[in-house]
Amino acid sequence: MTDFFKGIAPLQFDPASSELAFRHYDADEVVLGKRMEDHLRFAAAWWHSFAWPGGDPFGGQTFERPWFGDTMDLARLKADVAFEMFDILNVPFFCWHDADIRPEGASFAESRRNFEEIVDYIIGKMEGSKTKLLWGTANLFSHRRFMAGAATNPDPDIFAWSAATVKSCLDATQKMGGQNYVLWGGREGYETLLNTDLKRERQQAGRFLQMVVEYKHKIGFKGAILVEPKPQEPSKHQYDFDVATVYGFLKEFGLEGEVQMNIEQGHAILAGHSFEHELALAASLGIFGSIDMNRNDYQSGWDTDQFPNNVPEVALTYYEVLKAGGFTTGGTNFDAKLRRQSLDPVDLIAGHAGAMDVCARGLKAAAAMLEDGTLEAMRAERYAGWDSAEAQAMLTGDLAGAAARVEAEGLDPQPRSGRQEILENIVNRFV
Amino acid sequence: MTDFFKGIAPLQFDPASSELAFRHYDADEVVLGKRMEDHLRFAAAWWHSFAWPGGDPFGGQTFERPWFGDTMDLARLKADVAFEMFDILNVPFFCWHDADIRPEGASFAESRRNFEEIVDYIIGKMEGSKTKLLWGTANLFSHRRFMAGAATNPDPDIFAWSAATVKSCLDATQKMGGQNYVLWGGREGYETLLNTDLKRERQQAGRFLQMVVEYKHKIGFKGAILVEPKPQEPSKHQYDFDVATVYGFLKEFGLEGEVQMNIEQGHAILAGHSFEHELALAASLGIFGSIDMNRNDYQSGWDTDQFPNNVPEVALTYYEVLKAGGFTTGGTNFDAKLRRQSLDPVDLIAGHAGAMDVCARGLKAAAAMLEDGTLEAMRAERYAGWDSAEAQAMLTGDLAGAAARVEAEGLDPQPRSGRQEILENIVNRFV
Amino acid sequence: MTDFFKGIAPLQFDPASSELAFRHYDADEVVLGKRMEDHLRFAAAWWHSFAWPGGDPFGGQTFERPWFGDTMDLARLKADVAFEMFDILNVPFFCWHDADIRPEGASFAESRRNFEEIVDYIIGKMEGSKTKLLWGTANLFSHRRFMAGAATNPDPDIFAWSAATVKSCLDATQKMGGQNYVLWGGREGYETLLNTDLKRERQQAGRFLQMVVEYKHKIGFKGAILVEPKPQEPSKHQYDFDVATVYGFLKEFGLEGEVQMNIEQGHAILAGHSFEHELALAASLGIFGSIDMNRNDYQSGWDTDQFPNNVPEVALTYYEVLKAGGFTTGGTNFDAKLRRQSLDPVDLIAGHAGAMDVCARGLKAAAAMLEDGTLEAMRAERYAGWDSAEAQAMLTGDLAGAAARVEAEGLDPQPRSGRQEILENIVNRFV
Amino acid sequence: MTDFFKGIAPLQFDPASSELAFRHYDADEVVLGKRMEDHLRFAAAWWHSFAWPGGDPFGGQTFERPWFGDTMDLARLKADVAFEMFDILNVPFFCWHDADIRPEGASFAESRRNFEEIVDYIIGKMEGSKTKLLWGTANLFSHRRFMAGAATNPDPDIFAWSAATVKSCLDATQKMGGQNYVLWGGREGYETLLNTDLKRERQQAGRFLQMVVEYKHKIGFKGAILVEPKPQEPSKHQYDFDVATVYGFLKEFGLEGEVQMNIEQGHAILAGHSFEHELALAASLGIFGSIDMNRNDYQSGWDTDQFPNNVPEVALTYYEVLKAGGFTTGGTNFDAKLRRQSLDPVDLIAGHAGAMDVCARGLKAAAAMLEDGTLEAMRAERYAGWDSAEAQAMLTGDLAGAAARVEAEGLDPQPRSGRQEILENIVNRFV
Repeated sequence: MTDFFKGIAPLQFDPASSELAFRHYDADEVVLGKRMEDHLRFAAAWWHSFAWPGGDPFGGQTFERPWFGDTMDLARLKADVAFEMFDILNVPFFCWHDADIRPEGASFAESRRNFEEIVDYIIGKMEGSKTKLLWGTANLFSHRRFMAGAATNPDPDIFAWSAATVKSCLDATQKMGGQNYVLWGGREGYETLLNTDLKRERQQAGRFLQMVVEYKHKIGFKGAILVEPKPQEPSKHQYDFDVATVYGFLKEFGLEGEVQMNIEQGHAILAGHSFEHELALAASLGIFGSIDMNRNDYQSGWDTDQFPNNVPEVALTYYEVLKAGGFTTGGTNFDAKLRRQSLDPVDLIAGHAGAMDVCARGLKAAAAMLEDGTLEAMRAERYAGWDSAEAQAMLTGDLAGAAARVEAEGLDPQPRSGRQEILENIVNRFV
Repeated sequence: MTDFFKGIAPLQFDPASSELAFRHYDADEVVLGKRMEDHLRFAAAWWHSFAWPGGDPFGGQTFERPWFGDTMDLARLKADVAFEMFDILNVPFFCWHDADIRPEGASFAESRRNFEEIVDYIIGKMEGSKTKLLWGTANLFSHRRFMAGAATNPDPDIFAWSAATVKSCLDATQKMGGQNYVLWGGREGYETLLNTDLKRERQQAGRFLQMVVEYKHKIGFKGAILVEPKPQEPSKHQYDFDVATVYGFLKEFGLEGEVQMNIEQGHAILAGHSFEHELALAASLGIFGSIDMNRNDYQSGWDTDQFPNNVPEVALTYYEVLKAGGFTTGGTNFDAKLRRQSLDPVDLIAGHAGAMDVCARGLKAAAAMLEDGTLEAMRAERYAGWDSAEAQAMLTGDLAGAAARVEAEGLDPQPRSGRQEILENIVNRFV
Repeated sequence: MTDFFKGIAPLQFDPASSELAFRHYDADEVVLGKRMEDHLRFAAAWWHSFAWPGGDPFGGQTFERPWFGDTMDLARLKADVAFEMFDILNVPFFCWHDADIRPEGASFAESRRNFEEIVDYIIGKMEGSKTKLLWGTANLFSHRRFMAGAATNPDPDIFAWSAATVKSCLDATQKMGGQNYVLWGGREGYETLLNTDLKRERQQAGRFLQMVVEYKHKIGFKGAILVEPKPQEPSKHQYDFDVATVYGFLKEFGLEGEVQMNIEQGHAILAGHSFEHELALAASLGIFGSIDMNRNDYQSGWDTDQFPNNVPEVALTYYEVLKAGGFTTGGTNFDAKLRRQSLDPVDLIAGHAGAMDVCARGLKAAAAMLEDGTLEAMRAERYAGWDSAEAQAMLTGDLAGAAARVEAEGLDPQPRSGRQEILENIVNRFV
Repeated sequence: MTDFFKGIAPLQFDPASSELAFRHYDADEVVLGKRMEDHLRFAAAWWHSFAWPGGDPFGGQTFERPWFGDTMDLARLKADVAFEMFDILNVPFFCWHDADIRPEGASFAESRRNFEEIVDYIIGKMEGSKTKLLWGTANLFSHRRFMAGAATNPDPDIFAWSAATVKSCLDATQKMGGQNYVLWGGREGYETLLNTDLKRERQQAGRFLQMVVEYKHKIGFKGAILVEPKPQEPSKHQYDFDVATVYGFLKEFGLEGEVQMNIEQGHAILAGHSFEHELALAASLGIFGSIDMNRNDYQSGWDTDQFPNNVPEVALTYYEVLKAGGFTTGGTNFDAKLRRQSLDPVDLIAGHAGAMDVCARGLKAAAAMLEDGTLEAMRAERYAGWDSAEAQAMLTGDLAGAAARVEAEGLDPQPRSGRQEILENIVNRFV
């Protein structure tokens, strides 16, 4: 037991508490026939919570964590503290990047050995904990070797390095019983078209993803392969811009039945979409997988990765999740980071706890909206005209047939109210 | 001959002129073995130049054109003036929306008859002119019946109306010898997800586009079907967000060999992309078709549709067009509109003439960059490592093979300079 | 009594109702010692609710109101319906633009006579109603004569026309017992710097505002003069960009004691600020006046003017209002417009009613946060170090003195947590 | 002589060269009666060119410079290389932050001693060089002690530390013969209003700036004090948002005669303005000082600090500079940074050289536009109506007088074309 969270006891559900506690998240409360924990499937993330030093483009490290440094001992200390936080928060899942859990070695082989050793150490920790692995992923963006891409690098040796890294990470994910494997391609894009062969790079990326899927099947990994879209930052343009872009990419490379989406609120915002848009679109295309529940500041043009705090927005998030059937292998991962001024251990706990409460309120509101049914009834009624045989026949007919009918029947269709304000009022009854 | 452009003679190529003339655009100048006119394939657009009254969300009509009104006589006057402008500008092409060339009738049938009559009138005008039809399109967004969508409307009768309208427009395009047919879906999207069945609407849109393609083949139309992406405005979200989105859509509905893109600079900007990105992406996906050459103001969050005026940017545009093999059926359409304060006939001519000069300079710079070859040589050199047999073999191998090689060979790939500043300096030699 | 709102009775406070009713807004409920109605001081606006036809840049009229048209009879009908809505909503205030309440005449004099006649008609209506005038304003942006500015126009005759119009409107505001007079300068800016003399135009705008203030005093108008900042749209740049810009402008022209701000959420967003930022800044500068409570869509780059619907955001709004001491002459005006698809009379009522409920919830949450006191206590504690005599002395000292102390005392100040997540959690206890 | 730039000779003016050379910048060429060097007054910046390791929010160091590290010897090596670059580029000026030229010490006193020693070393280097100091500035944002502000920090000891730092930097600037002193307040703002006392912080910032001005006069520093506006990043909101905001701030604290602006293109873009807007506004308010000539990517929502590369835009920049009378103490500083993939010494030279050429082309185009006179003549003509005695009299009159004239004279002012397209065409003759 480290003393990092000294004085902070595991959080309890206590609606009236003004101390550190869950005021809304009760893991065992049943919502729509399922425990809240099983709906939300919260995960905490290694990187922002334990590996990020607090820097931004104009300032360096603000956090002073006893585990910062490059030795295996410090990596183990970091893991110890991480599991203490998982216990305090009672989260059922966690997530990692390879580069965040092990020190970089002097060679690929040394990095791999470090990684395998720390993976075993974490597996040992998992044996004494309820917290499981939601997903693992490879950090193919921080080191300078990836500055011009990983799979999309002009240098095939970096493609090889990336392939080797994903192999290690997928092996480890399987060994740890992970339920998904995620790919985020922060450097899979470009800074300037002037030095970029867009077509070639997309082909490299497509083949790389096929290789990942092939390897998954080879080793018998049962989890889902998830791609996390983001439009830009760090790159000027990233190939996984948004859900619609990735869908086209999957179709191009024959992967639409193999790969699902890990969708982040902040990335949706940077792409010019609402979070619920990305969720609804992924669900409609059959590629919804998991979510990263960190918000972007609406006035900032970069990825702020803040803990969610707006219940009405989060209610719309879980409304889409529930309409999509809820999570299967996916979950609610906090890819959120503390503000760099939030220096204290208690801030780390409070950030997660507040977010979990916001998600719990959102989920309950979403469930209530679904149970109430008014929203879905009004939506269905709006399209009711399409249920007629005549309307369906038109879809199997041709332009000339439709045109003939318009004139023959003297059609003069009149617009009907879209009811947006009334629908928003209905939502507000539940949030 | 109307007197609208009284005193304005057809523009000549005269580099030293300070009067209305082309200082750079010489239709007959040969660039890369082809006349400039045949490269650029300029088109003028009916709507902004002749139908738009100058309104914006906070103000009404500013232009006072003698043809404004709803009679067939005024529609003919409008066509007369349009062809006078085409002659003054010596543009080889024009484009129309149905609603811009004919008065709305009291019924679909009356609108169609008005339309057919004015189409015949325009065909008569074309016989005395060099100007041909680049593309026709249907206005399925201005009338209140389309407020909730055309093909994606919750009301199937509006789908029918839209289908009938596109049939008329495609028939007319063929009759006029049009080289393409364009679809822009300004209302094919949503204002709020709360009243929208995203999946259903995308299915309607997909089937509609299939019906358009089927009808094209049925009537033997030889031109291209083009979709024009736009992310938003007027809708909060539009289904044809950008090139990547439309590509996925075409794949979903089996249309990727049938439909190409009409890409607009202003729409690219609203989607968070550079224009050259959209062009390069469309070319790499085999769906590049045509361009709308109107720019967006970089500080405005809506579609400003200004005439292009920045030669270095336009040079990068035509660099992508030339790399894509140049236009086949497509061309350079000015979907640009005069500023609403630019009241005079001479403004209309000057806006087009300046834009044509900017495009001519851009084309010549792009051709010079290609002929010089440095940019492409540097690009090719950057990816040269991929030409080795070993690199290509890796693409047909698997993750485990790549991983084995990384360790066996002790790979330690070193990053190389991306040369962005030097590449930008090279571009600046030509613009 | 018209039949426009046929079947819609005056709204009652009924928390359990699923019909049209206030679920949260109880005008008489006392919050922080004051009736809710007296806190919120709701106003309904003539323009979007009764004068706007539903157009957007890509589509025309969607609303079909029986009062649309240009006669005095229709203007009276519009006033009748407006007062019926005020009664249904039980709003204590309304607001107008001159151009929205009277038909444009063939000359200034005729427009003025129309205006004066309708003003008298409205005064008659007010006598039978509880609804008072919050503010009047002049529409100096819709008509084509204002396309290049009103006070900032290059044509001094348009300055004169604008001055005459404001005189009429200020006279009418006083006659109607209005509590404020507002100026919004949608055309006071530019489309391109190339044709603009920025310095001269700012001087014209400054002198114009001085003349308005002088005239206010001349006629003994006791209300406040309010300027409404907006950064852009319709203009590329507007001189009243945001609160900070207007403050500098007021200082330049000696008006900071005479003029206050009317701050709109949507305009704040377009300027890159949160609404609460603009409110807090205005309060800190002593120029806070009134608010327009219409939100912008966060993914749209233009003014969407939607009814507010997010309680946590609105709570932060009223938190700033309450901290500023609450409204004096100002109030909460809905400059919101129905979505153009919301065609029905019930939509108009529901839009306002839902917004009033959202504001009521926000106000009560804000009051509870203030009463609780934790937020303010934590804020005060963060700056407590500045209360020492030594710290205050430093502010009256010089750089050299401060430098001497740093070295003499060997200062090594350590950063303290900013507590952002904890503060956000505290807010979430109340919303 | 270090070997960092081995093989790179001082750049010559050689328009036909395809090697590293100036193709447009000829320091001695006379433009509008002044040498180009004296117009442009180029400065190179220490920080991005020599101190920045190449990191971004998702990746670490990419540059491997022999001087990276924390010793005085390395600081001297860095200075040696910097002056070698200044010689190669033949720039007349350079700029520094304190934290970029000296290693941080264990205490304020040690940092100050390091700083003073390296300042003396640089002074020694200046004696053998033509390159002078354009401005110095204090880095009050990188170290964690400044995470919550410098002058605006809740901790008065950090205010003291900041004051002491600025004293050192201003002393050093004077000692080195610097022509200006700059303040940029990247942390003078907030992350959340919830923990911020906006009013108090602005008072602290105002008093701090007064103290800087007082100290300047005390020590007899003859240079200008410059404030560099930026709206956000790293903070969510910064108090020096843009030129208009800073103007109001200067007025509030009585500093408008004492402080001028250092305006950066990238910061203007982030604030929603064009660069020329900020320049024209500062000039019109009498507070134009100097420029940072680094552009922002138009599709990125953060500060990209790229070397300028678009001649038409830069021409409009220098057009405003020339109209403002040109630089006095100010100049053209490159606060630009290499792309993090531009690893090689030659990239550093090429980045600057290309930018200097772009500026030279822009300056010459701007001068030609001024000499031609058409733009200014058309602007003057547009406002000519204001030159009449009647128009001027209106400005000294009142609303009632203006109103009386409108009716008495039956004014019906007609809008005139704003000529935007024609003006843009005229600009394009020169760029």
